[in-house]
Amino acid sequence: MKANDMILVSVDDHLVEPPTLFEGRVPARFADQAPKVVTDDSGADVWVFNGAVIPNIGLNAVAGRPKEEYGIEPTAFDEMRPGCWDVHERVKDMNAGGVLASMNFPSFPGFAARLFAAAEDKDLALAVLQAYNDWHVEEWSGAYPGRFIPMALPILWDPELAAAEVRRMAAKGCHSLTFTENPSALGYPSFHEDYWDPLWTALCDTSTVMSVHLGSSGRLAVTAPNAPVDVMITLQPMNICAAAADLMWSRVIKEFPDLRIALSEGGTGWIPYFLDRLDRTYEMHHLWTGQDFGDKTPSEVFRERFLTCFIADPVGVKLRHDIGIDNIAWECDYPHSDSSWPDAAEGLERVMAGVPDDEVAKITFENACRWYSFDPFAHRSREQCSVGALRAEAGDHDVSIKSFDHGRVEKKVGVRALDVAERATA
Amino acid sequence: MKANDMILVSVDDHLVEPPTLFEGRVPARFADQAPKVVTDDSGADVWVFNGAVIPNIGLNAVAGRPKEEYGIEPTAFDEMRPGCWDVHERVKDMNAGGVLASMNFPSFPGFAARLFAAAEDKDLALAVLQAYNDWHVEEWSGAYPGRFIPMALPILWDPELAAAEVRRMAAKGCHSLTFTENPSALGYPSFHEDYWDPLWTALCDTSTVMSVHLGSSGRLAVTAPNAPVDVMITLQPMNICAAAADLMWSRVIKEFPDLRIALSEGGTGWIPYFLDRLDRTYEMHHLWTGQDFGDKTPSEVFRERFLTCFIADPVGVKLRHDIGIDNIAWECDYPHSDSSWPDAAEGLERVMAGVPDDEVAKITFENACRWYSFDPFAHRSREQCSVGALRAEAGDHDVSIKSFDHGRVEKKVGVRALDVAERATA
Repeated sequence: MKANDMILVSVDDHLVEPPTLFEGRVPARFADQAPKVVTDDSGADVWVFNGAVIPNIGLNAVAGRPKEEYGIEPTAFDEMRPGCWDVHERVKDMNAGGVLASMNFPSFPGFAARLFAAAEDKDLALAVLQAYNDWHVEEWSGAYPGRFIPMALPILWDPELAAAEVRRMAAKGCHSLTFTENPSALGYPSFHEDYWDPLWTALCDTSTVMSVHLGSSGRLAVTAPNAPVDVMITLQPMNICAAAADLMWSRVIKEFPDLRIALSEGGTGWIPYFLDRLDRTYEMHHLWTGQDFGDKTPSEVFRERFLTCFIADPVGVKLRHDIGIDNIAWECDYPHSDSSWPDAAEGLERVMAGVPDDEVAKITFENACRWYSFDPFAHRSREQCSVGALRAEAGDHDVSIKSFDHGRVEKKVGVRALDVAERATA
Repeated sequence: MKANDMILVSVDDHLVEPPTLFEGRVPARFADQAPKVVTDDSGADVWVFNGAVIPNIGLNAVAGRPKEEYGIEPTAFDEMRPGCWDVHERVKDMNAGGVLASMNFPSFPGFAARLFAAAEDKDLALAVLQAYNDWHVEEWSGAYPGRFIPMALPILWDPELAAAEVRRMAAKGCHSLTFTENPSALGYPSFHEDYWDPLWTALCDTSTVMSVHLGSSGRLAVTAPNAPVDVMITLQPMNICAAAADLMWSRVIKEFPDLRIALSEGGTGWIPYFLDRLDRTYEMHHLWTGQDFGDKTPSEVFRERFLTCFIADPVGVKLRHDIGIDNIAWECDYPHSDSSWPDAAEGLERVMAGVPDDEVAKITFENACRWYSFDPFAHRSREQCSVGALRAEAGDHDVSIKSFDHGRVEKKVGVRALDVAERATA
């Protein structure tokens, strides 16, 4: 399929929260304690909440910047492309990239909102988290109906409250919950305990997908403290197979057959090997480990429950039928460093050369829409949704690579795993 | 290719050390301190050395046993098939399975001999390690010339001594060193420091392959303490990609171009995705991370340096040219629970249906022989080496599945990750 004829719905992008997010959204008694942006001595804009200082990591807001400017240093709002944090600019960038719709994971709270969960005052935590969710669905996704798959932050500290929040958000049309790929690593009960059952029930009842983003437990792949950062970058998507294995062999999968899970930013090329490994492990070991999938194989169960995604994965495309053609979605990863924006469509045209049009459509938007109960065509005609049509709408919106380097940050070459891990857990 | 026409050389099997291993092989002053086998109160035979008690894990000696008898309980010699620990029985089992030659990793010392390295008396450690290596090359591999690829244990505590031991063993015809996939996890300097340079130099000088077996750092994939053991089993081969990434981005690869590395028991189906990920990481990030592979891509470098292997991996077979047809070897994994013995050849016939004969030959023996400087045909004619010929030699040697359960051990269903991790690090 030609790039301009595609329809693109991305199941993994990121927003950088604007400083005004909580304004007027928390009860007056918490106004002073709500997260706020301050500019630190180095000139970086950082979020402050509950005694923690959370920088915006440069690498997570590099869309449209030269690769030489990539780095892990904390950044400032004027060192990012405005589409990172301004929804109106974001939609212009989406149009210019031909992206019809996008699901946006959070930044400073952590993918599973562990920052909010860490507050001892749980009334404050709840107020802030609900303010965020309301802002996301009303001001961010709500500003452009049909252009965003809304996503809710989870409540980690109380499964009944977590369930109630899922139901509250579903009533607002939100059918995606960002969640950690390993609650145990965050100090909460694992997928192998019944603690989370009220949440799983709520997800099933409301057809809300649990979207587990790589790295959401904060557990990074640090092979050695002095390993180069390249090791960590390489391994990131492959590590989500640990989450997939953890879930596959857990009681969650067996006892909540309606639960649907998305492996966000997990890539796809490793999946066929993983499925074969699941089936072989089951065949060789279930007689002594006690696992029981009834009349199904683990790989069959995986395809019923898991959505996978890729940015541009030639191996995944080649093996798409071994993965499951109904199990693959596309992601743009804007504005992170792995993103293919603004030329994603051209990249997809190359990597999917020879793939039949109906299969391209499944991967680029149909699977995403079905899994997330999302219907963009309720808001604009299908003709208006193609890459070509959106780009025509974008007009002369500038997507050229340009420097946002004001000379504030001294760039450092040769970053080590520990540098990143320290910042990630700071 | 028909099963009986194949030639099978396995690059990953295991020996269980017989109780007599150290007899007459350590200086008299260490005779009392050499590792010895004792039978514990439960009836299990355990190794004792330097204050540590090391059981033989049942799961690691289950060849020929019913799957219901698999388990992690410590075992006794009479609860194993004799081929686990008796080289004469082993060769009979190899013949019956049609396996021409085999490389055997150690059991009780750990894959990287960390048990010996832990001894405070380094003279004792050296005496014991050299006794082991001599025994391996003289009594085990040496008993049947051309039937075993000899393998040396490494010295972890002194890189100059480690280098000398590699040279000493190479002079005896040994061109494989078992090594840890992550020295940092064992408390030693990582692959990113120059500590190991004398060892790398010795490996290059002697054309000795560094064989890094999954799990050799003792770092297991424990997603959560109460995760079922199935999670760990599933993830084992996939975790070696962390070692591959760690090595690929390390100085070792750049500064020692003659060093060859085998990813033992790592499987192959994940490799094409991994290679694509390496290349993409390089393309997107090397301008700020400072990585430099000159005029090559990381995937090209990988294919020059790394040997991979599989037991029976349909995805790996399908993607063999994306992996590198000269980079894949076969392994049997006898007597571990993943092993395909005694029907490995039939399994290969199925999984390699349609693969040209010359490619089957590369995978089943040619690549292994070339990488490990091993020439089985110096000892027997090629005609005598096929699966069919070896099976004819085996005659009526019994390979039927039979119980070795004497009722000593109460089997437990539902093993958790922590149970295994505790035993593994006991």
